[in-house]
Amino acid sequence: MNIAIMGFGTVGTGAYEVAKTAYDINVKRILARHGREGYENLKDIITNDIEDIIRDKDIDVVIESMGGIEPARTYVLACLNAGKHVVTPNKNMLSAHFEELTETAAQNGVELRFTSTAGGGIPWLFNLMRTKRCDTITEVRGIVNGTCNYILDSMYDKGADFAEMLKIAQDLGYAEADPSSDIEGTDTLCKTVISANIAFDALLKEKDIPCYGIDTIEAKDISYLKNKGYTCKLLMNAKLSDGKIKAWVEPVACPSTSLEANVKANNNIITLVGESIGTQSFYGQGAGMLPTGESVIQDVIDIRDGTKMRYPAKQNNKYTAGECDEVRRYYIRHNKLCERIMSLVDTYEEKDGVFYCMSKPVTVIQMHNTGNHCKEKASPMFFAAIMD
Amino acid sequence: MNIAIMGFGTVGTGAYEVAKTAYDINVKRILARHGREGYENLKDIITNDIEDIIRDKDIDVVIESMGGIEPARTYVLACLNAGKHVVTPNKNMLSAHFEELTETAAQNGVELRFTSTAGGGIPWLFNLMRTKRCDTITEVRGIVNGTCNYILDSMYDKGADFAEMLKIAQDLGYAEADPSSDIEGTDTLCKTVISANIAFDALLKEKDIPCYGIDTIEAKDISYLKNKGYTCKLLMNAKLSDGKIKAWVEPVACPSTSLEANVKANNNIITLVGESIGTQSFYGQGAGMLPTGESVIQDVIDIRDGTKMRYPAKQNNKYTAGECDEVRRYYIRHNKLCERIMSLVDTYEEKDGVFYCMSKPVTVIQMHNTGNHCKEKASPMFFAAIMD
Repeated sequence: MNIAIMGFGTVGTGAYEVAKTAYDINVKRILARHGREGYENLKDIITNDIEDIIRDKDIDVVIESMGGIEPARTYVLACLNAGKHVVTPNKNMLSAHFEELTETAAQNGVELRFTSTAGGGIPWLFNLMRTKRCDTITEVRGIVNGTCNYILDSMYDKGADFAEMLKIAQDLGYAEADPSSDIEGTDTLCKTVISANIAFDALLKEKDIPCYGIDTIEAKDISYLKNKGYTCKLLMNAKLSDGKIKAWVEPVACPSTSLEANVKANNNIITLVGESIGTQSFYGQGAGMLPTGESVIQDVIDIRDGTKMRYPAKQNNKYTAGECDEVRRYYIRHNKLCERIMSLVDTYEEKDGVFYCMSKPVTVIQMHNTGNHCKEKASPMFFAAIMD
Repeated sequence: MNIAIMGFGTVGTGAYEVAKTAYDINVKRILARHGREGYENLKDIITNDIEDIIRDKDIDVVIESMGGIEPARTYVLACLNAGKHVVTPNKNMLSAHFEELTETAAQNGVELRFTSTAGGGIPWLFNLMRTKRCDTITEVRGIVNGTCNYILDSMYDKGADFAEMLKIAQDLGYAEADPSSDIEGTDTLCKTVISANIAFDALLKEKDIPCYGIDTIEAKDISYLKNKGYTCKLLMNAKLSDGKIKAWVEPVACPSTSLEANVKANNNIITLVGESIGTQSFYGQGAGMLPTGESVIQDVIDIRDGTKMRYPAKQNNKYTAGECDEVRRYYIRHNKLCERIMSLVDTYEEKDGVFYCMSKPVTVIQMHNTGNHCKEKASPMFFAAIMD
């Protein structure tokens, strides 16, 4: 089977390397502006003209590993409309244009597969779909951002400060020069959109999902929670409740004996709950050249072998987003106990002018609104839901 | 698609219940000596004559959920030879007759699938095979016996004794009336044979794999290790090393911050290491009516949909078993420090007439031989490998 790779950065190169080891997968074209050092032997198959791929009837599957929304979206739509299957690790594009992309694939009778958009090298979305063939998913949750996990894990281990660990994560290449999408939670948000849409046959959009990141966390939060037996992690959450999907992203104080608390470095863990199968978790590398490249090539192999899997193309769209009225208790840390925060607080202690609070049971949306209100007032607080 | 179920006990019933919810899976026949309470409506499809299944050309897939080795093996061979696909959760039968069963399936051009033989409801073997399509597995390991994990976890939590927790596990239905296959490690051994044979395209037999169970563990072992920051678990282990497969089963002292240490109750966790994908773990319910039944039906759906997966039928048999000369350090507890044990010991402390030792680096086989020697002398000791 002939395939093309659009974009020859980290993931594109990883996919190329893994494809070499797979049976009957031939990379016929690579779309790239320039060659890549160490890959001079590929100069004859590298092109900077997308038409060389779209018009080539011998290319069955196209891997889109350019990243970003445009021109990736336009190119993917062109490939799908040209009758080519597409595999993509591009979570930003997919999350922003989920309905358009999946519908275009369905209308053309081709596959759009994207296992590596959530969990990187972990076969999370593949297994989520496989489970659904004879089970009903009621909940998905997990650690899906390796950069945040690396920062939080290092802070926990070393007692170090956020800025210092973010810098190290950047030096190691885990975090981008502009780390906002990781630390503000929007990367996790994209993966929540995609995971929830697969789990519940839905068409959620990013705006449906409250999201609070870890950009306001401080060493004192980690150490306060550690003393109480908790480890702080950034989690995606989505569940079916009262016939609606409740989905949100927020820091969570996980009991130190939970699986989540013991996910080290930049690894991910993702969990599904099924009515028959119960709780099932998938752990591994959520990013990286070879793991993500392998996950992409596994999708290509599934297409080659005709593996049927119920990606929700023509959506049932059975469930829609509901308000995040799930109730939980929160740890809240702030320098001032304004009236708005006080209305949520059950107990608190004060140390060196800092207030460490435990909230009453409050809804997710109430907590997020309060956190965002403080951010807008340039008086940021940190909060984390207490996991039972 | 018409299927038959041979054996209508816990797993057979679970498979029947899950099949009802799956698209286009019709249970046409059930082989059972008697009906089952609550299933009187099935009396017309229940038979006690295997020929009613073998001769029925409309039955495409047969689920063997009888358990035990005979007559299950004879019936499965008859089904395969009659051109029927077979799905089985029967680890004892498969482990004992791996080569014969897989070869018979291959010769008849039919599928023999057995995802639920290791990990119960966890899609472990399925994902192990999927990974192999474009990666090389170098190691598999994990907690695959829920009964032992339940006992060890309860002892850790409650400080209770082994016999007491075994009794509770029996009362809860986790452990059999004769619990020897769980606590002596032979159940884990069967799952190691199957996992290693899939991971490495091999034909290991049970006798190739040293196995030491948890039947000699005492509350004092748990509490001594807990004080040192370890949690004791029973693990399967198999790795490629020097061109040979080294596979063994033994208790392991896992650091309390490892994923393994934090697997609660009767859950399982199973890990693969791939050259490209790195470390990947799968967590969930390793047994139970609906989880195991669902795993069986997922195999049926894969057969129905023609999902290709590289079960090693005509074996490459690339690798054979080598001596377990992997070196590690062991915790050893014994009442007497005989010369044989002393030769392995690096440091020890004595408390109330009991010796708690840390070994020098010794090979797996050396440690197992010493443990078995003590058992034969009716002077049992307990040991656990120290996980890095």
